[in-house]
Amino acid sequence: MDLLSTAVKAIRPVNERWYATAQRHLDNLTKPPGSLGRLEEFARRLVAITENTRPVLDKKVIFTFAGDHGVVDEGVSAYPKEVTPQMVLNMLGGGAAISVLARHAGADTVVVDIGVDHAFGAVEGLVDMKVMRGTRNFAKGAAMTRDEAVRCLECGIDLANVYARKGYHIVGTGEMGIGNTTPSSAIAAVVTGASVAEVTGRGTGISDETLKRKAGVIEDALRLNKPDPSDGIDVLSKVGGTEIGGIAGLILGAASNRIPVVVDGFISTAGALIAYTIEPAVKDYMFAAHNSVERGHRLALEAMGLVPILDLGMRLGEGTGAALAMLLIEAGLKIYQEMATFAEAGVTDEIIN
Amino acid sequence: MDLLSTAVKAIRPVNERWYATAQRHLDNLTKPPGSLGRLEEFARRLVAITENTRPVLDKKVIFTFAGDHGVVDEGVSAYPKEVTPQMVLNMLGGGAAISVLARHAGADTVVVDIGVDHAFGAVEGLVDMKVMRGTRNFAKGAAMTRDEAVRCLECGIDLANVYARKGYHIVGTGEMGIGNTTPSSAIAAVVTGASVAEVTGRGTGISDETLKRKAGVIEDALRLNKPDPSDGIDVLSKVGGTEIGGIAGLILGAASNRIPVVVDGFISTAGALIAYTIEPAVKDYMFAAHNSVERGHRLALEAMGLVPILDLGMRLGEGTGAALAMLLIEAGLKIYQEMATFAEAGVTDEIIN
Repeated sequence: MDLLSTAVKAIRPVNERWYATAQRHLDNLTKPPGSLGRLEEFARRLVAITENTRPVLDKKVIFTFAGDHGVVDEGVSAYPKEVTPQMVLNMLGGGAAISVLARHAGADTVVVDIGVDHAFGAVEGLVDMKVMRGTRNFAKGAAMTRDEAVRCLECGIDLANVYARKGYHIVGTGEMGIGNTTPSSAIAAVVTGASVAEVTGRGTGISDETLKRKAGVIEDALRLNKPDPSDGIDVLSKVGGTEIGGIAGLILGAASNRIPVVVDGFISTAGALIAYTIEPAVKDYMFAAHNSVERGHRLALEAMGLVPILDLGMRLGEGTGAALAMLLIEAGLKIYQEMATFAEAGVTDEIIN
Repeated sequence: MDLLSTAVKAIRPVNERWYATAQRHLDNLTKPPGSLGRLEEFARRLVAITENTRPVLDKKVIFTFAGDHGVVDEGVSAYPKEVTPQMVLNMLGGGAAISVLARHAGADTVVVDIGVDHAFGAVEGLVDMKVMRGTRNFAKGAAMTRDEAVRCLECGIDLANVYARKGYHIVGTGEMGIGNTTPSSAIAAVVTGASVAEVTGRGTGISDETLKRKAGVIEDALRLNKPDPSDGIDVLSKVGGTEIGGIAGLILGAASNRIPVVVDGFISTAGALIAYTIEPAVKDYMFAAHNSVERGHRLALEAMGLVPILDLGMRLGEGTGAALAMLLIEAGLKIYQEMATFAEAGVTDEIIN
């Protein structure tokens, strides 16, 4: 059986019995019941995902998938596409925002060329999984063939499998790709049923005029390509991009390995929507890192029943939100593992009023 | 001149010129301008507070002030007051939530007995600054004399001065005191002008009936004690508590030393309101850690123009929110310090659309 089918077949909803098991321990700790709010939720979910009452999060990794987009020919992005490979090299050099925040979170970073329109040659540290040199312009036809879309998904699944075998406990998603809010808005519109206007924002900071053009390009392209909302692979192939496919695959692969996956911002959430369309049970394995400024992000998260952890007015991508959220998820686990119980500490847990 | 007057006289609003200086550097970093949202705000504020373009946050400390409250005689709290000293010992033993989260954030913890109704004797690690053995019941009269209130403020100022001399770069507030949401709601009502009902919540988890009694006790007590909203020391002395005074003093002391101070939850915010009433310029030095579940918290923050960093459904206090927020403030600083500029990384910063 191929990599994609094997992964999808292995994904099961988490068994809710584990939530209750974890909550019983949380309620014995020296604090009023439920008073640590979402930190307790994170602990419950880690126990349920791993089916382990002593989960660990020692090895963390964030994958930044990089790809280019033919649709930038329509003038939808603030920056020229040369920035994609330039930023890939900046990430490998440790100077990008994701480099800084992953170090802060104690997470390793893996930068994956899944579809950059640039020949890097041999570059130390870059993972070469190039499926194509940028997607085709989806204003003119499908961004990828169905086979190319599947190959992108399988890159992500492959990485999840490899890093599961390496003993990683949690993975985060990230991306770099000039123009990639355009396919992300297209995916959000198709999968959630929202209007293009509701889910199309300013990306890296485009003008009013460019925003209007961007929404028009997406509307026209959806009429032309007719993606099937019930078929995630069809949606991915029609609008792209390679990095969104890689993220969707990583999420499917993480869920199939019972590894929690932290979904970064709007573009990562477009990848999550693709994964969710393929197998809705992935939602039990996802943590939504943050609510980005990008219009449509919250709507896309709500469609999957995910509540963002942070809301810091960020709109950078790369995995930056995922890195910060990992620190909070880990805080929840440490509460679960390290706090004293009422009995251990000799603290009264009798409620009198 | 006494400790309080000296501290208050030394507090000045930050010079906004530093915000622009910091933003110029942030805009040279390899990301779209403003795309890291509040992380950039944190960096700007640290530069302005410290008047230093290379601020550091290596030494962090969270102070947990513990005190008891005579008003628990009115049956306003879910737990008996024996829990206050029990939790103090739990914190010193490293098993409390604040112990766990401060370790996670790399912050030292200092537990201060400023008004616990218990004779601890010699306990390793406990800072003895006891002003009184619990406040008096403010349903029957003033919780403290004006002199006792000033002594509480001076405990906090003293600690801020000592830890500034020890080279600490950032301080956080926290508290432990059964019954302390009751004086906090009283302070919030008096200082913000909101009704008691708007700012009175369930604390550690009281029933509907107890909540109703609690609001009634506060309303009656405010009529009896007539605190003067324009006089923070009067408000503090009328309703208490000692730990709220310690927090207010810590904030005044941190601001007078140009040290950023992370304000934890609802009770800490009541302390912040007292400090703000004494000297409004303290607000430039405060970071609001989180929006707690406790009713009235957001209203109290808004009264000072503070926007909470986190919103995780927490309602524990102790400094737990401050510990988590420190991790994010530090993330902002690392972005400012460690990211590559466009020139260093050879990344195009030309905007084309």
